[in-house]
Amino acid sequence: MEYLENLGQKAVEAKCELQKLTETVKNNALQSAADALVRETERILVANAKDYEIAKQNGMAEGLLDRLKLTPERIEGMAEGLRQIAELNDPVGEIMESFDRPNGLHINKVRVPMGVIGIIYEARPNVTADAFGLCFKTGNAVILKGGKDAFYSNAAITEVIRETLTQKQISADAIQLITDNDRAVTTAFMQLKQYVDVLIPRGGAGLIRAVVENSTIPVIETGTGNCHIYVDEDADLKQAIPIIINAKTQRIGVCNACESLLVHEKIADRFLPALGEALKENSVEIRGDERVRALIPDATDATEEDYGREYLDYIISMKTVSCVEEAVAHINRYNTRHSDAILTENTEHAEKFLQGVDSACVYVNASTRFTDGFVFGFGAEIGISTQKLHARGPMGLRELTTYKYMIRGNGQIR
Amino acid sequence: MEYLENLGQKAVEAKCELQKLTETVKNNALQSAADALVRETERILVANAKDYEIAKQNGMAEGLLDRLKLTPERIEGMAEGLRQIAELNDPVGEIMESFDRPNGLHINKVRVPMGVIGIIYEARPNVTADAFGLCFKTGNAVILKGGKDAFYSNAAITEVIRETLTQKQISADAIQLITDNDRAVTTAFMQLKQYVDVLIPRGGAGLIRAVVENSTIPVIETGTGNCHIYVDEDADLKQAIPIIINAKTQRIGVCNACESLLVHEKIADRFLPALGEALKENSVEIRGDERVRALIPDATDATEEDYGREYLDYIISMKTVSCVEEAVAHINRYNTRHSDAILTENTEHAEKFLQGVDSACVYVNASTRFTDGFVFGFGAEIGISTQKLHARGPMGLRELTTYKYMIRGNGQIR
Repeated sequence: MEYLENLGQKAVEAKCELQKLTETVKNNALQSAADALVRETERILVANAKDYEIAKQNGMAEGLLDRLKLTPERIEGMAEGLRQIAELNDPVGEIMESFDRPNGLHINKVRVPMGVIGIIYEARPNVTADAFGLCFKTGNAVILKGGKDAFYSNAAITEVIRETLTQKQISADAIQLITDNDRAVTTAFMQLKQYVDVLIPRGGAGLIRAVVENSTIPVIETGTGNCHIYVDEDADLKQAIPIIINAKTQRIGVCNACESLLVHEKIADRFLPALGEALKENSVEIRGDERVRALIPDATDATEEDYGREYLDYIISMKTVSCVEEAVAHINRYNTRHSDAILTENTEHAEKFLQGVDSACVYVNASTRFTDGFVFGFGAEIGISTQKLHARGPMGLRELTTYKYMIRGNGQIR
Repeated sequence: MEYLENLGQKAVEAKCELQKLTETVKNNALQSAADALVRETERILVANAKDYEIAKQNGMAEGLLDRLKLTPERIEGMAEGLRQIAELNDPVGEIMESFDRPNGLHINKVRVPMGVIGIIYEARPNVTADAFGLCFKTGNAVILKGGKDAFYSNAAITEVIRETLTQKQISADAIQLITDNDRAVTTAFMQLKQYVDVLIPRGGAGLIRAVVENSTIPVIETGTGNCHIYVDEDADLKQAIPIIINAKTQRIGVCNACESLLVHEKIADRFLPALGEALKENSVEIRGDERVRALIPDATDATEEDYGREYLDYIISMKTVSCVEEAVAHINRYNTRHSDAILTENTEHAEKFLQGVDSACVYVNASTRFTDGFVFGFGAEIGISTQKLHARGPMGLRELTTYKYMIRGNGQIR
């Protein structure tokens, strides 16, 4: 694949250049890119209208069409995102540790850029600017492969940013977009190990799986969330309903929404009828076990498959359990290592849950919806990691860096 | 693969139990396992003799036979390794960060075990005890797949450890050995993603490549080292020769040995003849560019392929360069992101090299042989990571852990 080789080589050249830029230069470029996006709104909207028309003709679903569509406000939002990234501290260069060895070697562990980051995503043009901003700020070159349904939009946004970089005398190859939409090219991109240091897929479970199965580049898996809330026997039940309604319905299609509910059997009688009412008022369909169905007449039968599903819809699975240990075991079996919560006033149960549940984020008495780089105060987010290598949970700027050891001696031999 | 499913399920059960053990319990178990290895020396030696005989009949090379062979001293060494691990601080439970958000959420970033670690290695039985010790200390269950040539040795060592754990009323499945040597089983193991959190191959470049290409589990690549030394125009040439001889010949088959040498053209005339003599005295064959060959009569022609090779032998490739930038570019093209050194008294050149070379460990005026967990003071080492995700360079106990966010609220919704 000569096309990809060429892209890879250019990214490597850009990476070497980016690593030398000062924070001020990077921030100025980000501000200029933000201005340029706003200035070129018309051009981006024209490109986006083309994508939108084609997608509509191809029968794209309403929800996806909405994510594809750009407006002047949304472009302003993209620009604002870049400006916010410019305001954040650059983590690169931080001396993470410093130590001397008995033989006189002085060792510094220094935070450095990853190098070249690959991002594979779906038809969300805002990711284009966003991913560029985060990678650029951390001194990484980025190669983007966006969904083909957003092809013209992504190309326009990329062009505007590249023009800005060129004006600033920075290598435009800091951001490259793969414009060949052949599936074989995408697969080959996942194996461009010689040039790409890390691959981050952003999108649905199918996309993530395809990347994990085909990539030889190290992957950070993001975003699939089968999040649970466990209502303990010692829960504050008045607090429980608003938390569950928030976690389930505040935004239905996001990875930190609650998809499954566990309820201690001792409080089922008292709690489930009221909860059933509240969920019904919010148009949430319930799929539960026998006990749940006995107490919530509208509930249908939950299959084994239901417990493992990320609905991203007005549906919730529900199960009664006999103790916190059973809740933890169920969650560890079915969750996606994303976010899970216990509602309880019992600190011993809370502690068991915090220790036992194997997730990036484990909550006590709060909605799972808080798993988010902005909410955590990172100022930005490239995604939510659901694996355990490198980064777990919300990933901000720091998670786009690695480190190296710089070792200074005066002739030491072993 | 029912066999692997079963192994995976047992590892997950063991993992949950291990996470609850106190540091004292873990340390006592490690000490007991060390005692048991020594006590059962005869049993292990009998098993090892079986492996050794078969390997010899199969015509295994001398160097590999030596790595396979166990002696009472080597078994004592394995036990001593476990005792040393018991002495180290347990990194699990460390609160890495702690912060409060404006909405009242209290967030702790807490160091936790990875969970289940898979290790694939070659015919080195000492890795069996070593990998167990490191994983166990950090609360991880380990599934081992050792080289089939060390099958009986690995099985005996694993049995002794499992017996000890059972006596200590700890799940023996904290260590499991894959005893089916079918290649298809090993490949399936690399895809046991549902149960295994991270896979660490330990061995030669071929093994690492096979794992990277076949695994769907996140992999930490270790150990391939095409390490460079660049002798700058401002090097202390008296210091340079001992460093190069040390890095090349102190131990020939290790990943941090020097495989390639770059020399500034301005000092070539003064330096190369003496260096050529010193390398010849140490039986090192030189493959160099035209300039090198003109100054060292015994040197043969270095091909493009030579510059990319990890010889692990008494051979070194050599090239003259015109500046530090050319050295950095050459190294970044051919190295394996392991360890590279500059020899110079010029701080500006040293800085350029430290910043520019993309390796886990970058040295100024010291031998590359220092890239090692023990030398770095980590007290132990599971391998040297040559990738950029999660861990880079020597990996000790801390690098076998991940983190999770524990978030405590009092009813927060979004």
